[in-house]
Amino acid sequence: MVRPTLFVTAGDPAGVGPEVVCKALQRLRDQAPARLVTVGTRAVMERAARWTATTIDWRDYDPAADPVCGGMGDAELLDVPVPGVESRPPGQLDVLCGEAAYRYIEAAVDRCRRGEGAGVVTAPINKAAVNAAGYPFAGHTEILAHLLGAQGVAMLLATPRLRVAHVSTHCSLATAIERVRPERIVRVARLLAEALRRLGVDEPHIAVAGLNPHAGEGGLFGVDEQQFIVPAVEALRAEGLAVSGPEPPDTVFRRAYGGQFDGVVAMYHDQGHIAVKMLGFSEGVNVTLGLPIVRTSVDHGTAFDIAGSGRADEGSLLAAIDMAARLVRPHTGQERSSEESR
Amino acid sequence: MVRPTLFVTAGDPAGVGPEVVCKALQRLRDQAPARLVTVGTRAVMERAARWTATTIDWRDYDPAADPVCGGMGDAELLDVPVPGVESRPPGQLDVLCGEAAYRYIEAAVDRCRRGEGAGVVTAPINKAAVNAAGYPFAGHTEILAHLLGAQGVAMLLATPRLRVAHVSTHCSLATAIERVRPERIVRVARLLAEALRRLGVDEPHIAVAGLNPHAGEGGLFGVDEQQFIVPAVEALRAEGLAVSGPEPPDTVFRRAYGGQFDGVVAMYHDQGHIAVKMLGFSEGVNVTLGLPIVRTSVDHGTAFDIAGSGRADEGSLLAAIDMAARLVRPHTGQERSSEESR
Repeated sequence: MVRPTLFVTAGDPAGVGPEVVCKALQRLRDQAPARLVTVGTRAVMERAARWTATTIDWRDYDPAADPVCGGMGDAELLDVPVPGVESRPPGQLDVLCGEAAYRYIEAAVDRCRRGEGAGVVTAPINKAAVNAAGYPFAGHTEILAHLLGAQGVAMLLATPRLRVAHVSTHCSLATAIERVRPERIVRVARLLAEALRRLGVDEPHIAVAGLNPHAGEGGLFGVDEQQFIVPAVEALRAEGLAVSGPEPPDTVFRRAYGGQFDGVVAMYHDQGHIAVKMLGFSEGVNVTLGLPIVRTSVDHGTAFDIAGSGRADEGSLLAAIDMAARLVRPHTGQERSSEESR
Repeated sequence: MVRPTLFVTAGDPAGVGPEVVCKALQRLRDQAPARLVTVGTRAVMERAARWTATTIDWRDYDPAADPVCGGMGDAELLDVPVPGVESRPPGQLDVLCGEAAYRYIEAAVDRCRRGEGAGVVTAPINKAAVNAAGYPFAGHTEILAHLLGAQGVAMLLATPRLRVAHVSTHCSLATAIERVRPERIVRVARLLAEALRRLGVDEPHIAVAGLNPHAGEGGLFGVDEQQFIVPAVEALRAEGLAVSGPEPPDTVFRRAYGGQFDGVVAMYHDQGHIAVKMLGFSEGVNVTLGLPIVRTSVDHGTAFDIAGSGRADEGSLLAAIDMAARLVRPHTGQERSSEESR
């Protein structure tokens, strides 16, 4: 089996991204679950290595080579020159850092489009900095959808025991209600089922949350369930998927966390995010479903308040790398069973 | 200090209510934090004592007496005769049980109105059974508001580390959005602050959640924050309350759980309920704020599937009794400090 390549973007140079990349690579050493290529500016990464007291020798990325083991302290770097960015102070919103953050993503996507990689793992960016640099996107997901010409992406928040895909994300709650429609629910549930299969769940049992309290309480607290969610659940069942719902939103996430469901389709951003974030932040991974490539991300921001101190925790990036490697692996019966025994 | 009296209703006789009352009384024995008077039908309580293998001698409630310690196995009962109800099978929706459940609440409220008690702790009822018996209420809260002529009540969900009061509860999400208005937010925040003071938090720090993702992201994902929530926060601060917000809904509950806030004002039912229920069910207490009496409730339903087996857990009822006793206690400096040292 060819070892998959994942591009790991460094994120905003003024944020904790470069530091958590260094700490994650140091932790993984030759145990990385994929060939990892860091995408960033060399001087930025060298600075981050100093801040984190990690000892990494950056070696220029060569797509033709595939070092199974790079050796201790040896890491591949796709150098994206952004002159002067390494002298911008950490912890501050900076337009040149926004420019750099955008170019890292662009370079990673470009390599994937050329067939050099199967996925991208992203460190945090600052939206305002990216926007100030002239890229009017709401976030990573929108940038990737734009660069890859993808439509109909969905956000999956994943922790070891709870996976939640969202019917909508970055819009007002009133708009989110309007997006609760059968075709969207069906599309997101299908994407979730496919992701769960890649993660080793052969026949995923998916819960579709209701929109209203008590899933509408039989129409007393809203009819969206009867009008839009029930038809979606029926359509999904007709496809042979094991789907429950609409389930009462206040308990469905805890029930999934307890093992009753393999994944949940949430009707709006906070419905899923509140549930996942109550579990704490260290293990959460953000996955973009519906792109032609795999994309995972840390579940935290640029953390300007601690950038440059070396203190940022690499746990979420390690989880994101692990998740990406699991999602790109070819989907065979043998691998599924090895996944299940994890 | 006069020992406060709490009336504990038995709930639907076909549900687990009478059983958890027996188990809670058995556990508390002479350690009860208040004078506890069970409100139910004698034969129903005797049946529940058998099912739970508890040894309780029910003694008729006499408002004139106040036994500081009832002695082992001795419990006061306000007997509400409902002929034949004790022969209705457990675990089934039954109109006579709905009738009984309603009458228990009515009797408890009646005694409180006469000045005999400071609060009511309620075991679960079945809404459909109560409705079938001719009482068209959505739940306990609505029954109590009706019986006590109260307007402007609010639901508080409380666990040891997270307390959440709700701006609205039992309505569609679309209606809930319309209820996010300054006057409601201010009223609910005031009720929460008062409850927190009674619980021993002298100067409560309250977080007001946003309505939209990222609390509207500066207007990108909705303007409800700027239009309705910010004015409420400003009005509360003008009263001298320590209030933060509007806070991003997906992290505010975890931050409160971590100690950053003493309580959270949630903008709608599931925003608060998802957060609290992710913590698990055993310690949750439901408190109705804004009534002329204290009212707490278990955080679970009638659990028809295990009614009659004696297996229902009394943890939530014990927590509800403890919470009610803390809320009714006179609010003096001395007591506050003893609360804080708990």
